[in-house]
Amino acid sequence: MTPHDGSLQESPLPPAIDSTAGAVKPPPVPAAVDLSHHISAESRLRQQSRLKMASSYLTRDPSILSLAAGLPSPALFPIEEVTARVAMPQAEAARSGVWKGDGLQEGVTMEFLKTKRCTELGKSEYDLSRALQYEQGTGSRKLLDFLKEHTERIHHPQYSDWDCIMTGGNTHAMETVFRMLINPGDYVLLEEFAFPETVDSLRPLRPRLIGIDVDEEGMRVDLLADILDNWDEEARGGKRPHLMYMVPTGQNPTGATIGTERRKKIYALACKYDLVIIEDDPYYFLQMPAYVRHGTSPSDGTVPVPKTNAEFVASLVPSMLSLDSEGRVLRLDSFSKVIAPGTRCGWITGAAVFVERVLRHNEVGLQFPSGISMAVLHGLLVEAWGQDMYVNWLVNLRAEYTVRRDVILKAMDEYLPSGIASWTPPAAGMFVWIELSYEKHPRHGHLSKEEIEMELFEAGIAKKVLIMPGSWFKAEPEKLSRAIFFRATFAAVPPEQVRAAIRQFGEVVRSTYGVE
Amino acid sequence: MTPHDGSLQESPLPPAIDSTAGAVKPPPVPAAVDLSHHISAESRLRQQSRLKMASSYLTRDPSILSLAAGLPSPALFPIEEVTARVAMPQAEAARSGVWKGDGLQEGVTMEFLKTKRCTELGKSEYDLSRALQYEQGTGSRKLLDFLKEHTERIHHPQYSDWDCIMTGGNTHAMETVFRMLINPGDYVLLEEFAFPETVDSLRPLRPRLIGIDVDEEGMRVDLLADILDNWDEEARGGKRPHLMYMVPTGQNPTGATIGTERRKKIYALACKYDLVIIEDDPYYFLQMPAYVRHGTSPSDGTVPVPKTNAEFVASLVPSMLSLDSEGRVLRLDSFSKVIAPGTRCGWITGAAVFVERVLRHNEVGLQFPSGISMAVLHGLLVEAWGQDMYVNWLVNLRAEYTVRRDVILKAMDEYLPSGIASWTPPAAGMFVWIELSYEKHPRHGHLSKEEIEMELFEAGIAKKVLIMPGSWFKAEPEKLSRAIFFRATFAAVPPEQVRAAIRQFGEVVRSTYGVE
Repeated sequence: MTPHDGSLQESPLPPAIDSTAGAVKPPPVPAAVDLSHHISAESRLRQQSRLKMASSYLTRDPSILSLAAGLPSPALFPIEEVTARVAMPQAEAARSGVWKGDGLQEGVTMEFLKTKRCTELGKSEYDLSRALQYEQGTGSRKLLDFLKEHTERIHHPQYSDWDCIMTGGNTHAMETVFRMLINPGDYVLLEEFAFPETVDSLRPLRPRLIGIDVDEEGMRVDLLADILDNWDEEARGGKRPHLMYMVPTGQNPTGATIGTERRKKIYALACKYDLVIIEDDPYYFLQMPAYVRHGTSPSDGTVPVPKTNAEFVASLVPSMLSLDSEGRVLRLDSFSKVIAPGTRCGWITGAAVFVERVLRHNEVGLQFPSGISMAVLHGLLVEAWGQDMYVNWLVNLRAEYTVRRDVILKAMDEYLPSGIASWTPPAAGMFVWIELSYEKHPRHGHLSKEEIEMELFEAGIAKKVLIMPGSWFKAEPEKLSRAIFFRATFAAVPPEQVRAAIRQFGEVVRSTYGVE
Repeated sequence: MTPHDGSLQESPLPPAIDSTAGAVKPPPVPAAVDLSHHISAESRLRQQSRLKMASSYLTRDPSILSLAAGLPSPALFPIEEVTARVAMPQAEAARSGVWKGDGLQEGVTMEFLKTKRCTELGKSEYDLSRALQYEQGTGSRKLLDFLKEHTERIHHPQYSDWDCIMTGGNTHAMETVFRMLINPGDYVLLEEFAFPETVDSLRPLRPRLIGIDVDEEGMRVDLLADILDNWDEEARGGKRPHLMYMVPTGQNPTGATIGTERRKKIYALACKYDLVIIEDDPYYFLQMPAYVRHGTSPSDGTVPVPKTNAEFVASLVPSMLSLDSEGRVLRLDSFSKVIAPGTRCGWITGAAVFVERVLRHNEVGLQFPSGISMAVLHGLLVEAWGQDMYVNWLVNLRAEYTVRRDVILKAMDEYLPSGIASWTPPAAGMFVWIELSYEKHPRHGHLSKEEIEMELFEAGIAKKVLIMPGSWFKAEPEKLSRAIFFRATFAAVPPEQVRAAIRQFGEVVRSTYGVE
């Protein structure tokens, strides 16, 4: 049964990609460890409806006439054609080794038509009637196949029964996996500073959050080990955490990227203490070459570009998924940062036992991402680009964001008082995390760190610059801040505005701290 | 602040439409009663993040430079242009009084471009850069304004502080409002037969469901009154229900439409016993003229069409929302049945206190419907059609579905044994609900009603017809069935297949019941 044959919207979950298939047989990989005991009471109550199960009759015998599915008629959808003109990235062979901002060739136009008109050459194979109709809870099979192949190529999952399912982007995915894994009162681990929407998404589920202190390389594994090794169930009033949420690459808000060795240590702790890891990784492909402070090259507006896609992929820090041999990492991927947030599309990769629970939830919630979004993404990724050209796009994209990162870092070097402000140049993502000295503030000891942050925030508003205080990102808001931080973003702001905003913030800091 | 000015994604909830505004001042309408005590413990824990609140500074002073929002750059979205060719419905003036299937004029093409190229004539005013960017949790303000005006025109809400918010369609909306209103253990009222996804969506929230028996006009108000009047808290082990879910028009699966008088009685009971009503109403505009059984007209392929839009709107049964003076109805509208399910767009209308909670949930879940879907819907509804032509479309659409309904009803008259099968021709929606006699079954008394349903279902499969047993739709699956039912749908199946399927089902019934 195809997803759109006018029958029911559902079929049994397809098997995961068999990574043992192929001409040369690689060594067999084991299946995931059974981690179904992590599934929450709420998620366990999800059932597949008998209506959906009945569709299996149509799969087995397509000659059966169905009066079963409550689908509207595609003949009565008033959207007759959709076209999308998409950019074509520079070919791999055309790269010169230095980014020159000339990454696009002439774009191409994809036309999405209803089936009967799709026989002409040059038309998308993605039938608009199907894009506009009900879809399975997995999302479009054709698009999902592409995403699974992409995931296989980039992350090489190390167990056999992994699978992918589409989501409405990582905010939707996050809420879904939290509900799947958290019972009220559970302790959950995350970075000490987190995306506020993550904390806002968690709060109604009533977990107890433990923020692990971060350093310039992200979550500190020594502190994580300490918490897990010395967990006192009685003193804590609850069991050792069984879930960790992390943004390992270009973390929001700290901009930190965890290196390979630390990732391996974190994963080993997860295995030792039976943690499930949610790897929320929208900035994975925005890993950037090192910033050379005050240098004339390569940070004076030029950015090195890998000569080949293979070189680019090899340069990426391994994902937590790629280190996972037991099926305990749930990886959340999103198109928001690499294609466009308005698509509201992403996907989850993980062990089949978890992916099946997400499917059951999708069926009675999101249902599936917008069919129009999925058609446009199919036209872009599968038809116009293909796997290799998608990587070309990512190479170009990270070069563009590197240029933007270098603009803000150069402005910070220039305008922020060096004895007071300090930062680590981010190696990925869209954020810089600026620490300000507490001790050098004229009223330190009289004002708390949070009060100084608010003083600076409000002085910033008066000077017409909006920049976010670090304490607003605390995973445990009731804990006292251990330093003064601000988060700045550089992704969407024009370079001249970035420079002006940093200059104004620098003036605010100087005048607040009473320095020239 | 516009939703897309490169600032944060959020602003305080806008005020509801002021229905007292205008040249001639109508009598002022009161505000909704405060029903916030219905909000669940989970929903009460939702908070607006301080990041989103900070965006109010940008609203007040657009000259502030923002380093605050984690938005990607629209210049790096690889979708450059989108076009949608949309159908144009027949003009009101061209209607002849009888449906001739000629409801469409030449379609028009809407082009969605990024801002800088949107100055040309004939281009959509909806900026593609904005459609592809992060949007507020309310959904697109421009599209929402259209939906609010539509809601005002059709339903005339009777209290001042009503509001609308966009959803990902009614399945998403249903899960959202259930979570907002249900604590575990709560009793919830619904029709005795319900859409299985509704029951599947409710189960993980652990309410206790009470199915109210239905007759040919839907939920029986006498039984509803009896349950509420005689609620025994001790015997029930819980409080009187405070929530009712209903599909009042073209109910799924029974096809029943509740008449005006019964709607008023149900609403009066809701006020008396402080119920919140979830009005899930995707089939509202698929209300159809009466079917004349065995007549030669108008059910021999011709369908009457109202001469004017005003006549059509006046012919519609009033929605529960339109009867609501206290703000206790949450109306769920969807584009799935009137435009296309693949848009994954709908909206909730209700009291501001509830709409605000949905917004807080959207912000950490769905976020907003696909921006590409919203752009295409804006092009279709706001730019190509407008309010009046949208009603023209609905007039045409219900005529098309009336033709399809009449095909299945005619086939049922022809092929189902009249002494055994009985049904009420549906006055709305996409479903017919067929009752089969239990007493006339040769093994009645030996087989249960559920067993006979399964026998017929399986015999149907053997005869290559798939039709859904009524007991699969039970809101209380553990309750014994009080009759034998089957649900058939006619919306998307070609007429000849409908006739063949009903003929085959007729043969199954005849042979099972041993009649000619």
